[in-house]
Amino acid sequence: MEKTKGSFTLPGEAGYEELTLKLAERWGADVIRDSDGTELSEEITGAGYGIYSTICLIRDHNEWAEAHPDQLQQTFLVTEPKTAFGGVLTFDLMEDFFTEQFTINDSPEAFAYWQVFDRTEETEVSRASWRYDKNSGSVVLEGAHPFHDYTVNFLAYRIWEEISMYNHVTNNWEKEHLMPVDPIHEETREYLYGWMENWCDTHPVTTVVRFTSLFYNFVWMWGSSEKKRNLFTDWGSYDFTVSPAMLKAFEAEYGYGLTAEDFINQGKFHVTHMPPSRHQLDYMAFVNRFVVDFGKRLVELVHSYGKKAYVFYDDSWVGVEPYNDHFKEFGFDGLIKCVFSGYEVRLCAGAEVETHELRLHPYLFPVGLGGAPTFCEGGDPVRDAKEYWIHVRRALLREKIDRIGLGGYLHLVEDFPDFCSYMETIADDFRRIKSFHEEGAVYTLPIRAAVLHSWGKLRSWTLSGHFHETYMHDLIHINEALSGLPVSVEFINFEDVKAGRLEGVDVLINAGTAGSAWSGGMAWNDSGVTEAVSRWVYEGGVLIGVGEPSAAPGASAYFRLASVLGVDEDTGAKVCHGRWEYELAEKPGLIPAGASVRGRKGICLTGPDTEVIEEKDGLPAITSHRFGSGTAFYLSSFQVTPENTRMLLNLMVSGMGMDLNQKYLTDSPDTECAWYPASGKLVVINNSGEERKTVIRMEDGRQTVRLEPYGMAVVAVSL
Amino acid sequence: MEKTKGSFTLPGEAGYEELTLKLAERWGADVIRDSDGTELSEEITGAGYGIYSTICLIRDHNEWAEAHPDQLQQTFLVTEPKTAFGGVLTFDLMEDFFTEQFTINDSPEAFAYWQVFDRTEETEVSRASWRYDKNSGSVVLEGAHPFHDYTVNFLAYRIWEEISMYNHVTNNWEKEHLMPVDPIHEETREYLYGWMENWCDTHPVTTVVRFTSLFYNFVWMWGSSEKKRNLFTDWGSYDFTVSPAMLKAFEAEYGYGLTAEDFINQGKFHVTHMPPSRHQLDYMAFVNRFVVDFGKRLVELVHSYGKKAYVFYDDSWVGVEPYNDHFKEFGFDGLIKCVFSGYEVRLCAGAEVETHELRLHPYLFPVGLGGAPTFCEGGDPVRDAKEYWIHVRRALLREKIDRIGLGGYLHLVEDFPDFCSYMETIADDFRRIKSFHEEGAVYTLPIRAAVLHSWGKLRSWTLSGHFHETYMHDLIHINEALSGLPVSVEFINFEDVKAGRLEGVDVLINAGTAGSAWSGGMAWNDSGVTEAVSRWVYEGGVLIGVGEPSAAPGASAYFRLASVLGVDEDTGAKVCHGRWEYELAEKPGLIPAGASVRGRKGICLTGPDTEVIEEKDGLPAITSHRFGSGTAFYLSSFQVTPENTRMLLNLMVSGMGMDLNQKYLTDSPDTECAWYPASGKLVVINNSGEERKTVIRMEDGRQTVRLEPYGMAVVAVSL
Repeated sequence: MEKTKGSFTLPGEAGYEELTLKLAERWGADVIRDSDGTELSEEITGAGYGIYSTICLIRDHNEWAEAHPDQLQQTFLVTEPKTAFGGVLTFDLMEDFFTEQFTINDSPEAFAYWQVFDRTEETEVSRASWRYDKNSGSVVLEGAHPFHDYTVNFLAYRIWEEISMYNHVTNNWEKEHLMPVDPIHEETREYLYGWMENWCDTHPVTTVVRFTSLFYNFVWMWGSSEKKRNLFTDWGSYDFTVSPAMLKAFEAEYGYGLTAEDFINQGKFHVTHMPPSRHQLDYMAFVNRFVVDFGKRLVELVHSYGKKAYVFYDDSWVGVEPYNDHFKEFGFDGLIKCVFSGYEVRLCAGAEVETHELRLHPYLFPVGLGGAPTFCEGGDPVRDAKEYWIHVRRALLREKIDRIGLGGYLHLVEDFPDFCSYMETIADDFRRIKSFHEEGAVYTLPIRAAVLHSWGKLRSWTLSGHFHETYMHDLIHINEALSGLPVSVEFINFEDVKAGRLEGVDVLINAGTAGSAWSGGMAWNDSGVTEAVSRWVYEGGVLIGVGEPSAAPGASAYFRLASVLGVDEDTGAKVCHGRWEYELAEKPGLIPAGASVRGRKGICLTGPDTEVIEEKDGLPAITSHRFGSGTAFYLSSFQVTPENTRMLLNLMVSGMGMDLNQKYLTDSPDTECAWYPASGKLVVINNSGEERKTVIRMEDGRQTVRLEPYGMAVVAVSL
Repeated sequence: MEKTKGSFTLPGEAGYEELTLKLAERWGADVIRDSDGTELSEEITGAGYGIYSTICLIRDHNEWAEAHPDQLQQTFLVTEPKTAFGGVLTFDLMEDFFTEQFTINDSPEAFAYWQVFDRTEETEVSRASWRYDKNSGSVVLEGAHPFHDYTVNFLAYRIWEEISMYNHVTNNWEKEHLMPVDPIHEETREYLYGWMENWCDTHPVTTVVRFTSLFYNFVWMWGSSEKKRNLFTDWGSYDFTVSPAMLKAFEAEYGYGLTAEDFINQGKFHVTHMPPSRHQLDYMAFVNRFVVDFGKRLVELVHSYGKKAYVFYDDSWVGVEPYNDHFKEFGFDGLIKCVFSGYEVRLCAGAEVETHELRLHPYLFPVGLGGAPTFCEGGDPVRDAKEYWIHVRRALLREKIDRIGLGGYLHLVEDFPDFCSYMETIADDFRRIKSFHEEGAVYTLPIRAAVLHSWGKLRSWTLSGHFHETYMHDLIHINEALSGLPVSVEFINFEDVKAGRLEGVDVLINAGTAGSAWSGGMAWNDSGVTEAVSRWVYEGGVLIGVGEPSAAPGASAYFRLASVLGVDEDTGAKVCHGRWEYELAEKPGLIPAGASVRGRKGICLTGPDTEVIEEKDGLPAITSHRFGSGTAFYLSSFQVTPENTRMLLNLMVSGMGMDLNQKYLTDSPDTECAWYPASGKLVVINNSGEERKTVIRMEDGRQTVRLEPYGMAVVAVSL
């Protein structure tokens, strides 16, 4: 097989020039990058490679920060609920919080946002009833109602940029704490712009500035107790963008003001997994525009130096959503996504940007994200790489990615020659797959699937971060399954549904628990939505509902699409109602051996016409229901496994009235394939750790392919 | 051991006179009764025994019923939701219903109550938009909104009394269907009164008239399909009392009218397991008074013949709740309860009536309630009797019951001599236990427990029928455990709490799923309730919360007593919040070996002071939290087993700061005991099917007792 080159970003390391250049050659790198804490020597930068430099703009300016402490980034905090036993209740505001991360902002413009709430009644306490004691950092409430719970909402500066705080604490660093400065302040903004200009001036060898990412980190609040260090982390949240300046600017534009409680939300905050409120969406849009405005200036600056600007979509990513309609305005040349999973590949691949680049796992770090050893004693980086790669690879088959690469410290691979060898295979396989995409589009079944949830396009593919952060939600399993299936996929929201976006959709998926953003919560209370979906199924659509699809309290049916789905859920009020008896329906081939779902309590049939395909704990778990010319499937849950992934595909295919035995599908769930008609190449992959033989029905005859464990085969088909 | 006699009611049977009198002697009967379908011959009635006669007043009057078809009992029905595809939607009203049970009531006064609902919008459709086609029994809706679901609420006569319908269908009888007549109509009422008078005239040997029960059966709706014969059954519901006459009378008294939807409630009806609405409570109170008024006249009539009047608390029991404040007004001389479980014994024992009588299971029927063989080939009535008896017996130890007895067909026992022998033991043991109660009260720990739920006293002990009908609710398990524990027990509601009824309560139990009557639902939204409970715990009370205690949506905490309990439940909005780490607390002896609870998703600690005693699936499952001078325990669920029963006792004892090693307790959960200080008798029981040795700490020293499987021992203690 011909050795290919390019499309690979290698982390270089000064002091390891020979290793850097040797592996650059071996893995076919065309670009060398620095990492947090490493530098590139002239020997590396002068070796003819492209050079990426990482920039985290809002930290590393401690001198400026100290001189402008009122221009640090902020957040709203809320104390833990405290019970009043008498009439006076004192809150030590910082009692619950990590004082190295936060400090109270009691400036007059911040103090105006502070609020005390009676959480028993959920009413705000009049400001006349409480006072702030600056010396002790306490709020004292008088006239408290005994045995009511109270909380204080207040503003705090963030005095330790969270990503470096995490790295610092995890690696026991002993260096200065980096403070995050806030570009909402014109002074700081212009300072940062000037700093960036200077940086460009002084970094001539850099070909690509890699922003990590822009201004505001996802929320990550730490607590005072080691028993609860993590108070709140939500990868998708905008909580860390707040400041009196931002709020004033918002009010000026929107004509209404936000309160602390708009963010605090009874101490729940507005978790991405819950449907957003109107205020929240307005505020996000506002912040978004601010980030785009200043981000765009920075990108233009970088471009003016003849450098490219890529953005790393993580860390300080807020406002950089690639599926935001304003994303193109930044003018970024590339989007870099670190990936554990297939859905992250698709997220990257689908963004409207010139270069789509993946940062593969494992990172070249001694330990992985969960603390398990990787490139150190006890680690097995080849095993890790294979496990990530089989998830990533199947998505790579479906859509073109332009580049891959690694992050971290290259010297760590020295003791792991097998890893160096395996990475060579990955790089070569990646380049082959990319080349097929370049020759022409991959064959896709004529199935256009849409995932319906509260966020729609904005949160395409990801829910709120990585798989291991969101595994408890069925939808991430669905997204991961979809990421490698030969169907087209898009993400829509409830406004889209009402605006007629179901036109052209063949399969609609709604998957989540009741009240969540993924199911949709009260959006299902809108009969415009249920009518549109019902009509669409009636006219031939295939609906796949998972968990508690279309669930909203208050009506006769809990699943608002119960009549369409053929199932509903009893939440307790119907415990005395009878249930339809059923016999399991025979559906040869539909549910692959080994496929299974977890059961859900309370699921019941709406009538005798609902077919029960699988049951769990004596209740329907997978059902099928004809509604007009369409079909609705219900699954009580979904966990991504090869068998369940194939089951999902089968439901789509069968729901559309197509034969299950389609062309260009393998005959076993463990294996998958992709057919590139333009190049006449059939790529077959083995997602299992065992040898596999698989048969693929082609246009003309069949192909039988033998695959090594985790292996990939490319079959040239003469057309 | 001296052979005792009396307090036993035997079902006699004409044609089996010898058997009847022989077993009456052997089991120590003092009363002989008839059963549904049997008669007593003169040889039996003249043998010197008391004679019970069963009366089901509202059926067996078919001639009257046919002459007065407008005075049959009724109910509101609702069609299954139907989706409109075009503008016209036709409902065949009886399509879903068992036509042998129901017939449409389209009289003008009934028709006025009919309603059509848009169940997608949950709005009533104007009467102008629909019409009734009497010929086809259909409602035709015009101008329907496509893809909305609709239902019709209508009134139906009940043309087959449900208990006889069930017996008829189950036993393949071929006889006339008995129709239920409704005494709300003065004509029928006076007819029934006259009939009763005549009955008394013609039944001089009867000493006790046993009413089965009074006028209105619990709701039991049958469907048209054999695949869903049971549409809705709720032992506690008043749905079958309704009629235009009842509704008009209600409106006249309460000044507001009820609609069909007040009963239909979106097709959910008002299940006893859900908190009652204000309208529902008003209506129940009204029906109650009607039942008491007419019931009292009948009892007075019976008394005027020198006979006693007992009431069987099942079947047509509606309005006869023994814990209703009006119950005493009936003037009943006895209350008869059929029992599978201990809590039913306590329900009976606690009623304010002269004679408390139990009808034991198994009934002398060929098959049991679930259809399993009893007194026929394959049956093992001794095994069944033992299993019921061990539940009944432990409750009998706690409170005095006056009589026991059997129902059914005596000739069936002929082939089961072991059963005859075992019943002799039961009868003797029962009489001994009763005699100890008569000598003086049983020793009880100084623990006054109260169970808090929406129904309070009215639904003391039972939820809605038997254990096998309600096993899915934790509270019935709690009630069953409590029924044999040496503590005093009462049942209170949320109004009681606000009225100061926690005064004098040591242990408060709230056990149920969110939104249910047993947890309390929106009653917890009332800060008067949370304040009262919080203050009471703070001042030393012991709170035991099970499942989703005090849960109500809308506030910062989901468990409104989260601050007291030390735990809360995340329903999804806090999925990104951190959790307190914990180590399992050591509590020697508190949780008996073998005790365990099912876990519950989303349970989290409110702070570091909550002690986790047991965990399940990595989450807290049993916790303890000090609040002021009191203690709150949380259990994620409760299933009644000997070990869990002892655990419940231990939590109460330990919560009160008492030593776990109390006097007059056995040293193993399988065994229990009761100490009767006045008679100096210690009764020790073995609830297991194996021999047991148990040690009881007495005032002075210890007693070691050996027990046969399921056995009982009486130890005379010299004081």
